[in-house]
Amino acid sequence: MGRAADRRGVIRIDLDAAEGRTSVRRPDTIAAEEPLEIRVGAAGPGRRRPLAVTMRTPGDDLDLALGFLLTEGLIRSTDDVQTAQLCAGAETPNTYNVVDVVLAPGVPEPATDPARNFYTTSSCGVCGKASIEAVRTRSLFPVRDDPLTVPAAVLADLPDRLRASQRGFERTGGLHAAGLFTPDGKLVVLREDVGRHNAVDKVIGWAVRERRLPLANHLLLVSGRASFELTQKAWMAGVPLLAAVSAPSTLAVDLAEEAGLTLVGFLRGRTMNVYAGPQRVTVD
Amino acid sequence: MGRAADRRGVIRIDLDAAEGRTSVRRPDTIAAEEPLEIRVGAAGPGRRRPLAVTMRTPGDDLDLALGFLLTEGLIRSTDDVQTAQLCAGAETPNTYNVVDVVLAPGVPEPATDPARNFYTTSSCGVCGKASIEAVRTRSLFPVRDDPLTVPAAVLADLPDRLRASQRGFERTGGLHAAGLFTPDGKLVVLREDVGRHNAVDKVIGWAVRERRLPLANHLLLVSGRASFELTQKAWMAGVPLLAAVSAPSTLAVDLAEEAGLTLVGFLRGRTMNVYAGPQRVTVD
Repeated sequence: MGRAADRRGVIRIDLDAAEGRTSVRRPDTIAAEEPLEIRVGAAGPGRRRPLAVTMRTPGDDLDLALGFLLTEGLIRSTDDVQTAQLCAGAETPNTYNVVDVVLAPGVPEPATDPARNFYTTSSCGVCGKASIEAVRTRSLFPVRDDPLTVPAAVLADLPDRLRASQRGFERTGGLHAAGLFTPDGKLVVLREDVGRHNAVDKVIGWAVRERRLPLANHLLLVSGRASFELTQKAWMAGVPLLAAVSAPSTLAVDLAEEAGLTLVGFLRGRTMNVYAGPQRVTVD
Repeated sequence: MGRAADRRGVIRIDLDAAEGRTSVRRPDTIAAEEPLEIRVGAAGPGRRRPLAVTMRTPGDDLDLALGFLLTEGLIRSTDDVQTAQLCAGAETPNTYNVVDVVLAPGVPEPATDPARNFYTTSSCGVCGKASIEAVRTRSLFPVRDDPLTVPAAVLADLPDRLRASQRGFERTGGLHAAGLFTPDGKLVVLREDVGRHNAVDKVIGWAVRERRLPLANHLLLVSGRASFELTQKAWMAGVPLLAAVSAPSTLAVDLAEEAGLTLVGFLRGRTMNVYAGPQRVTVD
């Protein structure tokens, strides 16, 4: 079954089952989680430095790394990357849990942990405004003037389409999904992961590799909530509309307003809430 | 409404509503998300160093910091902390988004970013086994021999009890919850947050402050999935049973097995799966 899921023995309890069947041992398919370390270094023979470790579902790891680097503002396109490979050649068995990225000549190495760069740390002024300002400074792609419009009726169909394509969720019930769609509701690419941010990074990394950025005139659907982090990733990739099956946070709404990005939440059945950029969602 | 939620204008679309009512502007209550920076330093006049930034729902921030430090293995009890306060006294307006922790004399400062300490980085050997070994090395509290037993019928009632006490979720639909329960199903403490790891840290930080560690003979229920990280936090606090409304990951199951911790998933209605430590879940 590949590395995206694995089997474990489990005791299934059903208190309403027939006598003698309330507790049954059986195998269960479980979503895989393993650490991935992303190492980055400048062109040349120098050492790559560990930049981040994320707990992810194995698969599409090079895309995950590319998407992470793009959404953190460390690369602008695949041209900024000389090589990206699953680490090989060390003395220990290869666990396929390290991605080694060599930047193209002239691309600066990240100064430090990228999570730290997003915040002012010289005073007590850590706040949402500083976070939004940091994303605004880094984003390459304006989305405010993107002419995308999507009928609400098309949006309402997307969660079912996403779920229908989620092979991993069907088997494990434990994977978030992110799907990139065209304005008429055609699925372009879908990725699953135990971490919703990883699923989004895998979609965006695919687009980086395929030279599809900015993702103008596309929309991104996520199976869970819309956090600040996911909204940031959408903006960094130039996606003008982010839709979530569940709730947004205040900072996600504020960032979407700042970016001119459309943010849709609670996309369920025939209903939805539009939290920012409502001009892109049309109702006949 | 405090800082845990805020109001925003939203366009509510209901495609099945009566004509002229399909798209309505109305106010909506949204779960608050703001960055929290945790700064840590040794006793004395030295500078506190930023250790981590987490995106969290404001409230119980000192508990969040204490729970984070405990579950990362940086403190063992409240005696290891001299002072913990929301940062004050800088020149900018206080955003209440920084917690400043001064360690007690003799408690070593964290060497570096704690996330990094969990992984071997000298080779390609980053894998789940290394992550589990790192937690095993740090955990203060054995849970394997904890005599806790809980009837499955009691477990089955807990998600409704958790939800009934979730004031923030009811208002926003956007908050994860973590609840600490006694073996007979009595709720001891509940915390909500946009980040499920933060909700767990707030519960454990409360227990640190109240000198209730280890949380032997208690169980922890989380409203979402059971990841490696949440299982790690349960073990670090000495909780012998972790239950989740949704799916676990492979690494969460493996860590629970290693710890001798009981892991229950898909706790829904009258059914559940027991992934590890089934001797603690009794069925009549």
